[in-house]
Amino acid sequence: MPALGPVLYIVGLVLALLAGVMVIPALVDALTGHEDWQVFAASALITLFAGVSLMLTTQGTRTVSLNLRQAFLLTTLLWLVVALFGALPFAFSDLKLSYTDAFFEAMSGVTTTGSTVIVGLDTAPPGLLLWRALLQWLGGIGIIVIAMGILPMLSVGGMQLFKTEAFDTPEKVLPRTARLAGGLGMLYAGITLAWTFMLYFAGMSGFDALAHAMTTVATGGYSTKDASIGHYDSALIDYIVVAGMLAGSLPFIAYLKAVRGDMRMLLQDSQVRWFLSITGAAVLLAGGWQFWTLETHPLEAVRHAAFNCISVMTGTGFATTDFGLWGGFGMSLMLFLMFLGGCAGSTTCGVKIFRIQIAYATARAQMKRLLRPHGVFIPHYNRKPVPEDVSTAVIGFLITYMLCFLLLSMLLGLLGLDFVTAISGAATAISNVGPGLGDIIGPAGNFSTLPDAAKWALSLAMLMGRLELFTVLILFAPSFWRG
Amino acid sequence: MPALGPVLYIVGLVLALLAGVMVIPALVDALTGHEDWQVFAASALITLFAGVSLMLTTQGTRTVSLNLRQAFLLTTLLWLVVALFGALPFAFSDLKLSYTDAFFEAMSGVTTTGSTVIVGLDTAPPGLLLWRALLQWLGGIGIIVIAMGILPMLSVGGMQLFKTEAFDTPEKVLPRTARLAGGLGMLYAGITLAWTFMLYFAGMSGFDALAHAMTTVATGGYSTKDASIGHYDSALIDYIVVAGMLAGSLPFIAYLKAVRGDMRMLLQDSQVRWFLSITGAAVLLAGGWQFWTLETHPLEAVRHAAFNCISVMTGTGFATTDFGLWGGFGMSLMLFLMFLGGCAGSTTCGVKIFRIQIAYATARAQMKRLLRPHGVFIPHYNRKPVPEDVSTAVIGFLITYMLCFLLLSMLLGLLGLDFVTAISGAATAISNVGPGLGDIIGPAGNFSTLPDAAKWALSLAMLMGRLELFTVLILFAPSFWRG
Repeated sequence: MPALGPVLYIVGLVLALLAGVMVIPALVDALTGHEDWQVFAASALITLFAGVSLMLTTQGTRTVSLNLRQAFLLTTLLWLVVALFGALPFAFSDLKLSYTDAFFEAMSGVTTTGSTVIVGLDTAPPGLLLWRALLQWLGGIGIIVIAMGILPMLSVGGMQLFKTEAFDTPEKVLPRTARLAGGLGMLYAGITLAWTFMLYFAGMSGFDALAHAMTTVATGGYSTKDASIGHYDSALIDYIVVAGMLAGSLPFIAYLKAVRGDMRMLLQDSQVRWFLSITGAAVLLAGGWQFWTLETHPLEAVRHAAFNCISVMTGTGFATTDFGLWGGFGMSLMLFLMFLGGCAGSTTCGVKIFRIQIAYATARAQMKRLLRPHGVFIPHYNRKPVPEDVSTAVIGFLITYMLCFLLLSMLLGLLGLDFVTAISGAATAISNVGPGLGDIIGPAGNFSTLPDAAKWALSLAMLMGRLELFTVLILFAPSFWRG
Repeated sequence: MPALGPVLYIVGLVLALLAGVMVIPALVDALTGHEDWQVFAASALITLFAGVSLMLTTQGTRTVSLNLRQAFLLTTLLWLVVALFGALPFAFSDLKLSYTDAFFEAMSGVTTTGSTVIVGLDTAPPGLLLWRALLQWLGGIGIIVIAMGILPMLSVGGMQLFKTEAFDTPEKVLPRTARLAGGLGMLYAGITLAWTFMLYFAGMSGFDALAHAMTTVATGGYSTKDASIGHYDSALIDYIVVAGMLAGSLPFIAYLKAVRGDMRMLLQDSQVRWFLSITGAAVLLAGGWQFWTLETHPLEAVRHAAFNCISVMTGTGFATTDFGLWGGFGMSLMLFLMFLGGCAGSTTCGVKIFRIQIAYATARAQMKRLLRPHGVFIPHYNRKPVPEDVSTAVIGFLITYMLCFLLLSMLLGLLGLDFVTAISGAATAISNVGPGLGDIIGPAGNFSTLPDAAKWALSLAMLMGRLELFTVLILFAPSFWRG
């Protein structure tokens, strides 16, 4: 069994920090004269108490080096406890959510999913709206740091591809991650600020601009309006958000390098090119379909197609139109896009572009081998041969992904959901997209009417999807806790 | 470019044989006083003429050895021309089908899919009903022989796993396939006869018993009744058909060995065990759900669950109840089962159990490697390590399968089909199941109302699915036709 002390110490530290973040919405509510500030004050106190207690009881075990098992456990626990305590403000608020609903909302936030159970955002107090945005924003930077600092060491789903020679040993993972967090955090905050200004000048209020900038860059998709971005009905805002979602889907490491003067990764990385090409193709297809079939004005068609395809593919989940009305083609396309996601090391979820590339290269090498059985064909990624272990890890990931999706669909069906709600609910949760398809959980709907058991299952799926499946799954293996 | 002569010679020979088979329904119609015998006589003449012409023009190029490319081309051409000419009786008949509908029906037959565009089977002439059964029956034995004789040499989708040392060289593939066809054909006919007797004694007419036995063992699913097996409303018939579908899903090579006194493969093959376990689990789940939710009598629940789950999983496609009424769970389960199929070397289609096993073993080895990054974990199949090339071939196959499914779903959506019809139509065609989900193509529906373009797309998907994708796909690679 992995020694729990050092893991719990860090969890306690993060909880104490989370309590600090809760003070922000408390201040906003207090300054704008909303009674709700007490909700956040109470939540902050409980969270601070839990965090400090954990830190005090485990202080003797502090360490800067984690072994493999501790890293797996820490990663999963971090997302879990932030959702557990981040749910408190929702549970205490005037919205009268059950703890199940509150936990679903918090997990959807911190995993940057964006599925919501709250109806009546237009009249909700600002602190609560800010809290939803903050959860997604923290979840966004959190996953970037973890994906670049810890996941490559854990080799989950082929992430070892993104190992840099500098941190090959588990011992260095914590200091290195902390260093990464500094640079990436600054950059992330900078990008968020830039989008806040753009949205503000495009006509949003300062508060809405900040909240939407945070959930756009995090590709989270929580809005301050019930009608989501559709509320503003502004082409300019639509395109600013589109640019923001794309920005959130590229590898943040590439920005860090670009800031330091090395533009190569941003311009030459094949993952970035594939991502933009697939996005472009989807927008053309969906736009063309609207133009030909619904006879939408071409500019309208491109705008709706770009916004909704990119929102779904990047797993943001903002909506401007109900793409459920796009018929069989639109729904199949959206289901397909839901699985894709963006680049590794971004805030997006889904299977991610580099895995699609490696799977494609594997299938292609396979095809070549059919005609020349004795030829040697090695799949390439980014002009380099893909190491054997990365290739199998990616494949194992994709298979597990499909299996989890199918099992979750069936479980949701067992819980009484109809077919379209069950399969799109499973896809949207595991890929951290947000809305599903159909009347109930589609872009015009809401998750509030689902049975409680479905909400817990979806919450677990969001967590698993966010942490690349294996980080969570491995905790269920008896051998993890042995020896 | 592969030399076409030897390939076309065999195609011509098969067409001439097909013309001979067409004489059977002509005789049946003539003896029972149906004018339709002329339909078959005319079709037989045209087919015979085409076949003999091909043979005469290519006779000089006869050979007993085929190279790789010729084997790919021959396999695809065989199924294509049998569907093209097998469609003639449908096109000429009183049913007044367009050639598109006739081709769809014939391709659905020869690929043992079982999707139909014909309404009014109950009043159709016996010759036509027999022709549908014959197409599936021939398609069934055809794929068994090809899967054991030719596909292992072509290494498509990991089929090289079933290579036997006796025919490692392409030169020996034709004689060996011919020898295999003899033994397997006898066995196949014997099993069909056994089921004919069983169905007859269970209450079917002799004609219906023969037709249903043929399409059961072929896991095809064409019935002589509009209400399919549900027409008889007999538990005994249901269970005889269940046993027949299971018999058609096991590796026929194992039967051949069993007949020769070696029962080991039938009893110990891990593919057979997995297949039966998955089947059992699905039946328990679907039966349990009906019992708890619909409060069906337990015996009824098990009977309906067994019949419909096994019918869908084995890709037979007979129906006794409309499982569209089983709600979100039933539909998700059926969609999942559609992809599975039976064992390699059986009449079933789908991804097949051995690929699920190898994919599972790969994902499992991946999981173990996470905790011990320097350990060596090799996936096993049937207690033997899986060779590297088989593992990648299986993976390449699964990825290509999912991709084809998704692209076909979108294409069907583009052609105007609704979401459930589009995705279940794609799944049912590529997996050669038969019925889809939903009101239109579900077990209570029919493919006749789909647009022509959708019927051609589905026909191509059936062909690709039947021939393990790569056999067809490779013909579209420019390098296939070069050098």
